[in-house]
Formats: sequence, C-alpha cells, structure tokens
Amino acid sequence: MEQPTKLVFFFLLVITCSSCGADASPKQHYKRVREPCKRLVFYFHDIIYNGENAKNATSAIVGTPAWGNRTILAGQNHFGDVVVFDDPITLDNNLHSPPVGRAQGFYIYDKKEVFTAWLGFSFAFNSTQHKGSINFAGADPLMNKTRDISVIGGTGDFFMTRGVATLSTDAFEGEVYFRLRVDVKLFECW
Amino acid sequence: MEQPTKLVFFFLLVITCSSCGADASPKQHYKRVREPCKRLVFYFHDIIYNGENAKNATSAIVGTPAWGNRTILAGQNHFGDVVVFDDPITLDNNLHSPPVGRAQGFYIYDKKEVFTAWLGFSFAFNSTQHKGSINFAGADPLMNKTRDISVIGGTGDFFMTRGVATLSTDAFEGEVYFRLRVDVKLFECW
Amino acid sequence: MEQPTKLVFFFLLVITCSSCGADASPKQHYKRVREPCKRLVFYFHDIIYNGENAKNATSAIVGTPAWGNRTILAGQNHFGDVVVFDDPITLDNNLHSPPVGRAQGFYIYDKKEVFTAWLGFSFAFNSTQHKGSINFAGADPLMNKTRDISVIGGTGDFFMTRGVATLSTDAFEGEVYFRLRVDVKLFECW
Repeated sequence: MEQPTKLVFFFLLVITCSSCGADASPKQHYKRVREPCKRLVFYFHDIIYNGENAKNATSAIVGTPAWGNRTILAGQNHFGDVVVFDDPITLDNNLHSPPVGRAQGFYIYDKKEVFTAWLGFSFAFNSTQHKGSINFAGADPLMNKTRDISVIGGTGDFFMTRGVATLSTDAFEGEVYFRLRVDVKLFECW
Repeated sequence: MEQPTKLVFFFLLVITCSSCGADASPKQHYKRVREPCKRLVFYFHDIIYNGENAKNATSAIVGTPAWGNRTILAGQNHFGDVVVFDDPITLDNNLHSPPVGRAQGFYIYDKKEVFTAWLGFSFAFNSTQHKGSINFAGADPLMNKTRDISVIGGTGDFFMTRGVATLSTDAFEGEVYFRLRVDVKLFECW
Repeated sequence: MEQPTKLVFFFLLVITCSSCGADASPKQHYKRVREPCKRLVFYFHDIIYNGENAKNATSAIVGTPAWGNRTILAGQNHFGDVVVFDDPITLDNNLHSPPVGRAQGFYIYDKKEVFTAWLGFSFAFNSTQHKGSINFAGADPLMNKTRDISVIGGTGDFFMTRGVATLSTDAFEGEVYFRLRVDVKLFECW
C-alpha cells in the first residue's frame, strides 16, 4: 500500500508545480490563452445634429478646427471635429429596436487625408439584462472594414473587465447617421 | 510517526493545489476576490469660469454645441459642453483645506434629457504622502447618488494600478461650483 | 531510501507553496516584478496649425476657452486649449525619417499657472515591423524633464497590453513644433 500512495503524491506535486510555473513565474511573462471569458455584440446609432434635426439628434459637434463649424462636419475628412454623443444601443441593427443601454462619450476626427477617429466612450447599462458600464478607448481607422479598440475597464456586471472591441460600420447615411456594430470580447473577467 | 507525516503532506498538497487551481487555470477564467488592495478617499473642487471669476476659476468651458457659449453651461442639461479642469484635491470636504494634489482632465456633458457626463482625468500627486498619478475614465450619470468609473492605470506610487472609483456629488452651488467625493478602490496593486 | 525520498517531497512542497503563495493568494495582493516584457522607444512630431501652415500642420486647436482662438495657443499657459493630432512616429529624432506609424488623438492644456496637459491618444502601426495599436492616457506635466503616463490597452501585436510610457520633450520650436520621445515600457504582454 505504501508505494502507490507515494505515487499519488508525486503526481499531485507535478500537476501543482506545472500550473504554478505557468502562472507564478516571477517575471509574469507567460503567454495567456486568448479566448474571451465573455462576448457580447451590440449596435449603436449616431444621429449628428445638423441644425435641423434637434429633436432626433443623438450627437453634436462641439469642437472644430478654425475652418470648421458646428452644424456640418468639416472638410479635410472632418479633421479636428469633436463630437459628443449619447446613442441608443440595440441588440440588432434596427434603430427602432428597444434600446438596451446608451453609448456615451466622444469621438474626434483626427486625420486630414482619410477618415480616422479617436474614441473615448462607455456603454451604460441599466436593465434587467445588464447593469453597469464598459469603458472603451482607442483609434478607429474607420475606412477599414473592421478595427479594434481597447476595453479599458468596467463597473457593475463588468467590474474590472478588460478586452478588445471590434468595430465595424454597419451602415451610414450621408454625414448625419451611422450605425456601428461592436463585437465586445472580454479577456479579463472578475 | 509515519502516518502523521504523510497526513501533513496531504494537507499541504490540498492547500497548494486549491490555490493554484483558482489562479493558474490555463484560461484565466477564475473568479477573483473583490477586496481592494488599497483604498483612498479624496474630494475635489471645481469652479467653472463664468466670465467674471477668472481669478478663482479652476475649470473652463472649451467646447460647446452650436447653441452654446463658453461662459455659461448650455441648455438641454449642458449637452455637448466640454469642460477642462485643474481642481484642488483635499482630504476633507473643505475647499480651503491644503490641497494634496490636483485633479486634471476634462468632462463632457453628453445627454440632452438628464445631467450625465463622461470623464477622462488624472489625480496628480507630488507630496510627501503620495507621488505619482491615478488615471480615470468613464461615464458619470451624475443624478445618481453614487456612480462608478474605472481606474485605468497609474504611475509612481500607483504604478500599473487598476480599480473602480465611486463618485458622489458632495455639494454644488448653482452652476459654478461643485465638489466631488471620490472613493478610490484599487484591486490591482503592483 | 525512504527518508531521502520524503525529503525531496518536502522540498518540492515548499517550493510549490512559496510560489503559489506569491501569486495565487486569494486576495491577489502579491508584489509583482517590475521588469518590462517589452520595451520600445519612439519619437513623434507635432506641428500645430497656426493659420499659415495648413500643408505641413499635423494638429489643430479645436477647442479653446472663451478668451482663446483657434490659430494661436491661448494665454495663461494655454489653459483650456484642446488640440487634435495625427503625428508621424519615427524611430529617431528626425522629423524627416520614414514614419513607422501615427500618433493619433488629443491633448488638453489644463492648468493656468504652468504648462500641463492631459493626453488621450494611440500609436497606430501598420508596417512589416508592427501591426496594431497602443492606447495611452494620462497627465503630462510637461515642464518636468520626464513624466509617466499609462498604457491602458492595445490591439494586434500589442493585444491587451498594459504599461507605463515615459515622455520627454525632445525639442520644441516656438509654439508650433514640438517633438516627444516616448519610452514605452509594457508590463503586461499576452
């Protein structure tokens, strides 16, 4: 009976040490598995104020370069326009679907030669399904079919989360309406 | 003497393995304990420039929607107003207490129907007590008694930190002065 | 033969437990080693639009306080000026070196008494060397020789990264051109 018992100890030790080695390396330079702990897909809908749509608008130009104005996006690929938004979030691509939250924050067009923006915003949820917020930041080279920004934190149901969100422009109409699809992939869940 | 020794080994193994199992799972999808590694409470004081208080003002409106101006917060719950600030941080709720640092950054009012803001700012410390910075971002639905934003990073004494900060409006006077209480709960400390 | 074997077990257990204790403590309050998993040095070059340099300008003032205008940085240490930029990134300090990416985002001068800014921006790479983005946020007290901001996330080659970036002003010419050296130290690499 004695040798088998020792063998069990030995195996337990090997298992224990190999997992510790992977994670408790003093330098923390191990490779982590890139599989999301949570994944969510949403759409949000942005209607920019153009001087005539005050009632429906969900966003407004609040900063412009010297050559711009606040009722129409500026020339040179809108370079320098700062837009503040409070956009409905829906589960499908229909603007009129019941919103499940609000996308709130700002984007800045930041390149003269091509459409490119920088985004800082949150998804704010307060429904039976989700409570709390997901915070995002990053560059959005919006002529690319898909582009990745960072999930930099979260609160409530998304406490301390981090990840990557893949954006794609699902639709746009002139320079007043656009719809973004956001594929939220969370890699740190608490 | 032999069986007790083995028993000790066994217990050690169980302890060892259970903690490794919790943390070193190859997918990193374990539940982490939500107890702060550091907790700090501060107040900061914002005095918005209104055209007449240049000397005392600690913040200024620097962007507005087309219908706004930069010496008074805009109608529609200030939607679209961008405010830059450099506010004193104090340990208690007295504006005239010796500041222990500065809260620096911006907020954007981002909703037409109700007061709501988006914040990007830092606490900058350079005292005997604290050196370094804590960086914050997130949505601030400021009609709620308390609301959580993300601590997205830090430097110096707060190197690489992450966490959640609970904001509450401690006081306000008209549309010129407000005081925020910030309960900083750090869950990643290096 | 029996006692030595047990001794080996004992040592293995001690090693195992000490590393687990360091990393897998249920409270996650261990000290991590502060050695970067990746380190990169870049320069970026900012040429502010001043009404006459439309062709060369890489940035523009898009928000100002009531007393400012958008073709020259405002008085009082530019307090309240919001600048949007799309700046070339180079590997050395030569503006005319081939750019390896773009620094895109914004900065806000946020203090009346001294030059201090708040930055939100990304390094966007799309070359054979680097693909993806690094996202930054933080306070930049730019009269200090060096100052640290946070790396709050990344995508592509810099997937999920976090760290600290040390900024230094490498050169400036009047109020139109400046060059920042950015020493990017990543402490979380996936």
